[in-house]
Amino acid sequence: MSVSATDAQAAKVKIAILGFGTVGSSVARILYDSKPEGVELTHIFNRGVARKRVDWIPASVTWTENIHDVLLSPADVVLELAGGLDPAGEWVRRALEAGKSVVTANKKLIAEHGIALDKLARSKGCQLFYGAAVAGGVPVIPGLQQGLAGDRITRIEGILNGTCNFILSKMEDGAEFATVLKEAQALGYAEADPTEDVAGFDARAKLVILARLALRKDLTTSEIPAKSITEIAAIDFAYAREMECTIRQISRAELRGEEVLATVGPMLVPQASPLAWSRSTENMVLVGGAYGGDVVFSGHGAGGHPTAVAVISDLLAIVHGSCAIGLPSKKVAVSGDFLLRHYIRFIVKDRPGIIAQIAGALAEQEINIHAILQKPGHTKTNLPFVVIVEPCPSSALKRALTRIATLDYLLEPALDLQILEPEVEA
Amino acid sequence: MSVSATDAQAAKVKIAILGFGTVGSSVARILYDSKPEGVELTHIFNRGVARKRVDWIPASVTWTENIHDVLLSPADVVLELAGGLDPAGEWVRRALEAGKSVVTANKKLIAEHGIALDKLARSKGCQLFYGAAVAGGVPVIPGLQQGLAGDRITRIEGILNGTCNFILSKMEDGAEFATVLKEAQALGYAEADPTEDVAGFDARAKLVILARLALRKDLTTSEIPAKSITEIAAIDFAYAREMECTIRQISRAELRGEEVLATVGPMLVPQASPLAWSRSTENMVLVGGAYGGDVVFSGHGAGGHPTAVAVISDLLAIVHGSCAIGLPSKKVAVSGDFLLRHYIRFIVKDRPGIIAQIAGALAEQEINIHAILQKPGHTKTNLPFVVIVEPCPSSALKRALTRIATLDYLLEPALDLQILEPEVEA
Repeated sequence: MSVSATDAQAAKVKIAILGFGTVGSSVARILYDSKPEGVELTHIFNRGVARKRVDWIPASVTWTENIHDVLLSPADVVLELAGGLDPAGEWVRRALEAGKSVVTANKKLIAEHGIALDKLARSKGCQLFYGAAVAGGVPVIPGLQQGLAGDRITRIEGILNGTCNFILSKMEDGAEFATVLKEAQALGYAEADPTEDVAGFDARAKLVILARLALRKDLTTSEIPAKSITEIAAIDFAYAREMECTIRQISRAELRGEEVLATVGPMLVPQASPLAWSRSTENMVLVGGAYGGDVVFSGHGAGGHPTAVAVISDLLAIVHGSCAIGLPSKKVAVSGDFLLRHYIRFIVKDRPGIIAQIAGALAEQEINIHAILQKPGHTKTNLPFVVIVEPCPSSALKRALTRIATLDYLLEPALDLQILEPEVEA
Repeated sequence: MSVSATDAQAAKVKIAILGFGTVGSSVARILYDSKPEGVELTHIFNRGVARKRVDWIPASVTWTENIHDVLLSPADVVLELAGGLDPAGEWVRRALEAGKSVVTANKKLIAEHGIALDKLARSKGCQLFYGAAVAGGVPVIPGLQQGLAGDRITRIEGILNGTCNFILSKMEDGAEFATVLKEAQALGYAEADPTEDVAGFDARAKLVILARLALRKDLTTSEIPAKSITEIAAIDFAYAREMECTIRQISRAELRGEEVLATVGPMLVPQASPLAWSRSTENMVLVGGAYGGDVVFSGHGAGGHPTAVAVISDLLAIVHGSCAIGLPSKKVAVSGDFLLRHYIRFIVKDRPGIIAQIAGALAEQEINIHAILQKPGHTKTNLPFVVIVEPCPSSALKRALTRIATLDYLLEPALDLQILEPEVEA
């Protein structure tokens, strides 16, 4: 090896990949295809690493299942692509403590411990980038940190979970939930246990990260109300269509004074909203700024390659000497008490007086009915109908629905969905 | 003044604004409203500055019409918001030479001299940021530099000129060009002489900047074919609608091997494309990546406040020690020879044999006709009809249309629009 080659070698930023699954191998593949200047992959760590070895990785790369090989190595940047809180969180902490910069795609870790890890990184003079943690290949995080830092963002509305969007946009086209869930599982879009996605837990962690960067507020993930998409049926899409809406899993956070309103779950989305246009596993984020108005980002939120693009972009930012912009955020309590119109779908064994009783329970909470929809073609013994109520606090509606739940003609619990609209001023 | 106050003062990054027009005053207004930490406005420069003075700027700020007051001042960052190549280019150059970082919203300057200015900034250890130069408040530039640097972008399609989008989306709703142009002028969306916007020159400069960052190719602005939107008439929207399309001014650039195809002008856009959904002065940019697929950005492309958000975001990036990521680009020739379907609208004095002659001229260039559309309700003496041709090189079609232009039954030159679709592989 000539002297100049040695110098060039020495000048390269050394990279270790932790976790050689879908994203990890996509990252390595793109690095070898696109050969960005000044970067050298030195280590790949995975448990049971033997089964992970592939022949297209040069022999110079060390494969290891011992995390210390990475932590004690001269690697400058660690790409944490293993996911989960534990042990990935410990690895990230120790890498930062060892003076290594970290790029991570780990939404759970950043939602739970992002602020502490960021502080640790700063104290060590290292970088912590996590552009891949939300919306994969869609540059929402750099957009917020770098491009919209000058605005005062007051509202976020996002489609942050590709699995739910795949399921709901297929249901919009006529598919049944159970069928499309199986299809999503076969395609690798949904896990065998889909709870994390369909119940909104995955989206909730992402919303916490976005709220921190956009609203500059720290929310506690578990405080954000989450509703599962599993109760949505074909009939709800039919009624939504009548209201010129569709249904999507929406993650929403909004400033109200110093408080933050936040929620995740299926909502009625007006067809005129860009959020209604998202299809398949697409992700979309709308941020509303006091000065710049609404900005929309959309694209492929998941998958090996799109996520890898975000990871490599972060890596290149570090290699080029850029740094993450620290936007101070403030711990606040979460309220789910939006003041919105609601869609409430009942399935009843029909008999006289039902509407009167439901209307009565709503009136007791000072909730006005905006419309009652009842499509023909259903039997009286299993009759779905829909009540649209005027904007009301979610908490008041919950009290009314608890009361209504005791009525014996209800064949299943009422389905209550928020209707996505600009919130009404209280 | 206490010692600690002096220290705090000394630690602040000092800012000078060059150009106190719409954007400049928005920047100052937002700075005083949002009070970002560590920033202090020290100078405002404008020609004939006396008429610009406003009472909400603190007395500590120096108003000047002498550029040397700024260049010789201790200002750390200069915000160039005057626009145009000259003398703004000279100010930016001299500010960088004096070791000051520069944030500019000047698309013309960056399109023409961005690479040289970037080099100058690096040689002086200063920053040059220009996030506001394209699509105002929509963070496309940070998205490309920071968030998508890891992808290999092969295609850009954008709505980069709010004036044209305002005019064309109003025409889609039934307005006539002349009427809506007047409305745009009254609203301040269009200049008294709208040529720069409607002819595509403004969008062309922005496309050059995006091509540099996304495709990593340097294009020469004047080499990009630009077509004016002034020839578009109500009848074209009617025919477009029949083809499930609308019409928008599209700026488009695409890699073909090492060459770049690029063009700006009105095009037929399928209603299924996000670009068809843009309304009013909205800007939208779609970038297609080899790894991450399509990513779409949209929002308010112009106006004082949205542009000011981009300027202040760049300023905050500099204040926080971030730096622009230098993505090397390569000078290439521009070709406008896309291989696309075309919409060609003729207005003729009808007589037998017209279609045969037009078809003959197209056949000579080996161009196949896909469809002929002729809406009823027009007189034979002033008859519009449309020919849709299968994908063909723009150059071949141009030859055919030159030939057709000599035919005496044409009442006005044929209108030729590309139909926006993924380009057909040659």
